[in-house]
Amino acid sequence: MISTLTERSHLIDTDQLSKQEMEELFERAEFWRTHPERWQRAFPGRFVANLFFEPSTRTRISFEVAEKKLGMETLHLDGERSSTVKGETMEDTLKTLAAIGVEVVVVRHQGVGRLASMAEIDTGVSLINAGEGHGGHPTQALLDLYTLQQHFGRLAGLTVVIAGDLRHSRVARSNLWALRTFGARVILSGPESMRDLSMEENAIYLPFDEAIKQADAVMMLRVQLERHEENLFTSADAYRTAYGLTRERMEQMPTHGIIMHPAPVNRDVEIASELVEHPRSKIFKQMENGVWIRMAVLERALLGRG
Amino acid sequence: MISTLTERSHLIDTDQLSKQEMEELFERAEFWRTHPERWQRAFPGRFVANLFFEPSTRTRISFEVAEKKLGMETLHLDGERSSTVKGETMEDTLKTLAAIGVEVVVVRHQGVGRLASMAEIDTGVSLINAGEGHGGHPTQALLDLYTLQQHFGRLAGLTVVIAGDLRHSRVARSNLWALRTFGARVILSGPESMRDLSMEENAIYLPFDEAIKQADAVMMLRVQLERHEENLFTSADAYRTAYGLTRERMEQMPTHGIIMHPAPVNRDVEIASELVEHPRSKIFKQMENGVWIRMAVLERALLGRG
Amino acid sequence: MISTLTERSHLIDTDQLSKQEMEELFERAEFWRTHPERWQRAFPGRFVANLFFEPSTRTRISFEVAEKKLGMETLHLDGERSSTVKGETMEDTLKTLAAIGVEVVVVRHQGVGRLASMAEIDTGVSLINAGEGHGGHPTQALLDLYTLQQHFGRLAGLTVVIAGDLRHSRVARSNLWALRTFGARVILSGPESMRDLSMEENAIYLPFDEAIKQADAVMMLRVQLERHEENLFTSADAYRTAYGLTRERMEQMPTHGIIMHPAPVNRDVEIASELVEHPRSKIFKQMENGVWIRMAVLERALLGRG
Repeated sequence: MISTLTERSHLIDTDQLSKQEMEELFERAEFWRTHPERWQRAFPGRFVANLFFEPSTRTRISFEVAEKKLGMETLHLDGERSSTVKGETMEDTLKTLAAIGVEVVVVRHQGVGRLASMAEIDTGVSLINAGEGHGGHPTQALLDLYTLQQHFGRLAGLTVVIAGDLRHSRVARSNLWALRTFGARVILSGPESMRDLSMEENAIYLPFDEAIKQADAVMMLRVQLERHEENLFTSADAYRTAYGLTRERMEQMPTHGIIMHPAPVNRDVEIASELVEHPRSKIFKQMENGVWIRMAVLERALLGRG
Repeated sequence: MISTLTERSHLIDTDQLSKQEMEELFERAEFWRTHPERWQRAFPGRFVANLFFEPSTRTRISFEVAEKKLGMETLHLDGERSSTVKGETMEDTLKTLAAIGVEVVVVRHQGVGRLASMAEIDTGVSLINAGEGHGGHPTQALLDLYTLQQHFGRLAGLTVVIAGDLRHSRVARSNLWALRTFGARVILSGPESMRDLSMEENAIYLPFDEAIKQADAVMMLRVQLERHEENLFTSADAYRTAYGLTRERMEQMPTHGIIMHPAPVNRDVEIASELVEHPRSKIFKQMENGVWIRMAVLERALLGRG
Repeated sequence: MISTLTERSHLIDTDQLSKQEMEELFERAEFWRTHPERWQRAFPGRFVANLFFEPSTRTRISFEVAEKKLGMETLHLDGERSSTVKGETMEDTLKTLAAIGVEVVVVRHQGVGRLASMAEIDTGVSLINAGEGHGGHPTQALLDLYTLQQHFGRLAGLTVVIAGDLRHSRVARSNLWALRTFGARVILSGPESMRDLSMEENAIYLPFDEAIKQADAVMMLRVQLERHEENLFTSADAYRTAYGLTRERMEQMPTHGIIMHPAPVNRDVEIASELVEHPRSKIFKQMENGVWIRMAVLERALLGRG
């Protein structure tokens, strides 16, 4: 049973969001992007805690900028280092935060499903998933879709290639769910050893050189070579040659096709360095849009509390 | 010799506070609790530094919320990690903070008596003790007494049982002093091996099952099993059976008796998990009250500077 | 090629600042010192990131106070701990910060010349050097000169002795360049083994007991005994006797001569403890002035962005 707070206020993953809810988030992101005079005065004195059990400089500071642009007060709890946080249940940590006046908790956690469990309990705080193991990363997917919509004016009917280490990618999963909700067509690609059959129920899998020819957008996933067994890839060079987005491969895309990446980028591994700043790349635009999307998500969490 | 700044402004421990001073702090805590419209505008641009030589997520964030609710600017110095702070005397660290514009320093330190020594020097900052080794933890005691007064309308004449690892508890010590000042009756309890005879000059010691029958309130202390020699307790189970607050023991309390704990709780060690959220438990109320008390203590530190 | 942003906005080191630019910074520091009513309202909602690859409590909190006094929003990135920051190029980190809305990045880094290289690229952020290996530490030099000018009313013609571990001192280098620009006379002193011949092109080297007799001001450098080979100094005592500022040596200075130190001080190593708080010591005044200078430097970075 999901508490009533959940539906209005938590953000667990994109598979729990309707098309209309996502559209509203994009509208609010657009509002915050275009109304800087409304920042700071939005939610002064409202407390949000960033509870990170895994390191994440990039997502953390994007949320922090969003929080501060909304005029919120921010707390940071480093779940990796804090012995107190480590020694107690997540439920008790969340209830403690609620007791001292925190309304929203942004959580990065490695345990898939932990946030969904917490959302079933009335801890008193609204939860936002900032990346959960190999499970999901909904604000990344939302900012990706917002970027696509900003560029193409629509999502329905777009062909989006998601390429790379699908098996370990929370970004791929959250994007797949959200893109399908909007009627986009998703093509998965990448090394055979990194395929995830559960995702292929909702998308087709194609070799990269075939997939790329159909891509309105290609989302390159970050490859974490250190995670894989040695025999998979002998080197970054081998990965790039077989599965990386090189200039040659980019030129096989439709001429209107755009390049996306959740960052941080491994330059010259999954993507040629020269393409990162290429006019067809939206990588830095994605980072910028992440702030507007997170402002919208934080606003939803606060307003959803009634 | 105590500097004049000390008396007006530092908070070293509850044994240096008169009944009137504590009553004023409770009044100001009540003011801050009930006047959210006055937060933020209270002390804008006034700097406080949180100097923590020991980890303390819970006390740190409670202070941080209090500081931010008052509109103060906060700095964090992690004395454990900062090589600069470690390599210099505390006196030089405090004088440096004063030189750059910090008025109040909240200190968590393991060295009993260090803060009292610092208060004898004119470092230029007002000091607040946020927990000092096994010495004292005055804001915890103040929030406990404020919670008792909020519930019972008075402190004089109450019987308060403090139970658990008395020897290592700074919370017990600060509470004992403050409760005695208000004319409350304190009963100590817990394992023989954890008794502290110095505290028994001001309180009686009774076996837990006897003590509990007289308790208007029982304050369960956090047991830190890892600190104790192996032969003391073979397990958390053994501790709970002998000295924990179980449902059976709670039912031996007077029906109006309440349950307190400074948190974080070891569920099913010193207290049965089901009792933490019990209607008679004030544990989360204590956490909430900690913010109001710390706002009052910070205000005193700033106003006491004249 | 230096980008146009550089000249107007970056602060790489004092050798890139004209006399007029430094005078303007001193004027603005004086403005901020004397106009507290203008703090906070100066640059609300403007984002600065502090990117520290080396620990530096003192410089970090001085910048943080300056940033907050100007009403800016601050982010902290711990380059030592952040795996994301470690795994990517500094260029990508800076571009990411620009993408999420950061305008100024304060960088502490061990790699001499890294910031100058970054300043040649248009990353989108203004850079401020907060100490760079053995290279330079321009805000320290600026606050030192501001302190000298505040005390003597002028810089031209002053004799300043910089004494200690010259070879490893970024403070010495940045001060030498800036003092020469203003027509001050610099005398270097310290152990033979710590001389740096490259600095002696612009200053003379004298034994400490000779140098001190001519000093309008003596800047004692922090000695880091742990950095040096064991045979250099057998102990802190040996260093103090040979090269430390003792009371006896202070009495050899002109009676108007003042004592300076960038701090943190090793009491009774490079300077006698009793001299730190001596009326002729400007050490705590330097710390205070560091905040005003950093406010001026941050203001320059923001206004230089046009």
